[in-house]
Amino acid sequence: MAIRALFFDVFGTLVDWRGSIAREVRRLGLPVEAEAFADAWRDAYQPAMEAVRSGARGYVKLDVLHRENLDLILPRFGLGGMPEADRQALNLVWHKLDAWPDTVAGLRKLRETFRLAPMSNGNIALMADMARHNGFHWDAILGADVARDYKPKPGVYLAGCDAFSLKPEECMMVAAHSSDLLAAAAVGLKTAHIARPNEHGPGKGEAGPECPVDIAAADLLDLAERLRP
Amino acid sequence: MAIRALFFDVFGTLVDWRGSIAREVRRLGLPVEAEAFADAWRDAYQPAMEAVRSGARGYVKLDVLHRENLDLILPRFGLGGMPEADRQALNLVWHKLDAWPDTVAGLRKLRETFRLAPMSNGNIALMADMARHNGFHWDAILGADVARDYKPKPGVYLAGCDAFSLKPEECMMVAAHSSDLLAAAAVGLKTAHIARPNEHGPGKGEAGPECPVDIAAADLLDLAERLRP
Repeated sequence: MAIRALFFDVFGTLVDWRGSIAREVRRLGLPVEAEAFADAWRDAYQPAMEAVRSGARGYVKLDVLHRENLDLILPRFGLGGMPEADRQALNLVWHKLDAWPDTVAGLRKLRETFRLAPMSNGNIALMADMARHNGFHWDAILGADVARDYKPKPGVYLAGCDAFSLKPEECMMVAAHSSDLLAAAAVGLKTAHIARPNEHGPGKGEAGPECPVDIAAADLLDLAERLRP
Repeated sequence: MAIRALFFDVFGTLVDWRGSIAREVRRLGLPVEAEAFADAWRDAYQPAMEAVRSGARGYVKLDVLHRENLDLILPRFGLGGMPEADRQALNLVWHKLDAWPDTVAGLRKLRETFRLAPMSNGNIALMADMARHNGFHWDAILGADVARDYKPKPGVYLAGCDAFSLKPEECMMVAAHSSDLLAAAAVGLKTAHIARPNEHGPGKGEAGPECPVDIAAADLLDLAERLRP
């Protein structure tokens, strides 16, 4: 069955969260090791979502979890006294993460053939701001905020297919994380892995898939080439 | 409080559903009075949604209601024998309705200043296809499919504000129907009326608001002029 839509993981796959946050931390002149701060903030991500995924906590947007996690890590970096307004502003760094160099051109090419949507744990406002920041043109914003749950719960992928009125096998999940692709494949989506070998720092990222995938691509332009109709 | 986002009614406000459906009916050579067919199909719209709004029926997408309504009216027009595949194809006419002449340029201008989203009873796939057909660039697709209920239920408007993480008073509902604007205003949104005096045929449409509104505009370009920062 032909692929009609591509769903994209965003943090790490389309944008460089670590480099972007580190740049913002430096720009603000915060007296911390910028990359370590980015890593600590991101490290709190999965446990925070797990409370929602497990049902222990009702759905709250990722913006809320990012803010709680910021409050959690600031004291560890000696920044426990940061004023409320500065915390709110800093939390918005997630809305303006910079794309990897191939992302914009790759999405533009892929959009000629497929419906495109983020399938991210980021909420709609965050995704909309990030699209403006980088010039992404989505057909719709799907993902956690539409499903009101977090990946890799199967319902998040399936809610995206349903929103586009497509069967899972007509949709392809595109991600730099094998865990995301495994979960999407388990409910019937096709999968494409994007190599992001430096996501977590030099040499720290998935240079290739760690699970069976339909396509293993070097970047989004390579994916566009392989999916050329 | 400054307006940050504009929410758009779509059927009638941005696109000419009546003329578009009549054109498709003529193109297919169906032996019916094309405008009467369009009107009959549209007339079944509100009763079908009312079953969902009242809670008598769980949420189903507008594509499903459009199809049920098509099956309802075909026998009345002597077309009860239309094959299944033709019914499915005809039902997709709602995905490719043509914009009014001012819509594309108006949206492009408004997008320079505001986040834009459809706040329609049309489902996400329908809105995404219509955006491709006309060249609309939305920041996100909001409305019935995100709220899983139909306008003018207050929760639909409020779910849109929440998706953009905005207060209702930071959002403006734009519509050619006073009933839509009344409902949006009741939950705190700002309102703009667009004159579409020929929506239901020559001289049959709202030439101006029939309720208090923040802005009464002749068309989307006029709205962009009045909202100029």
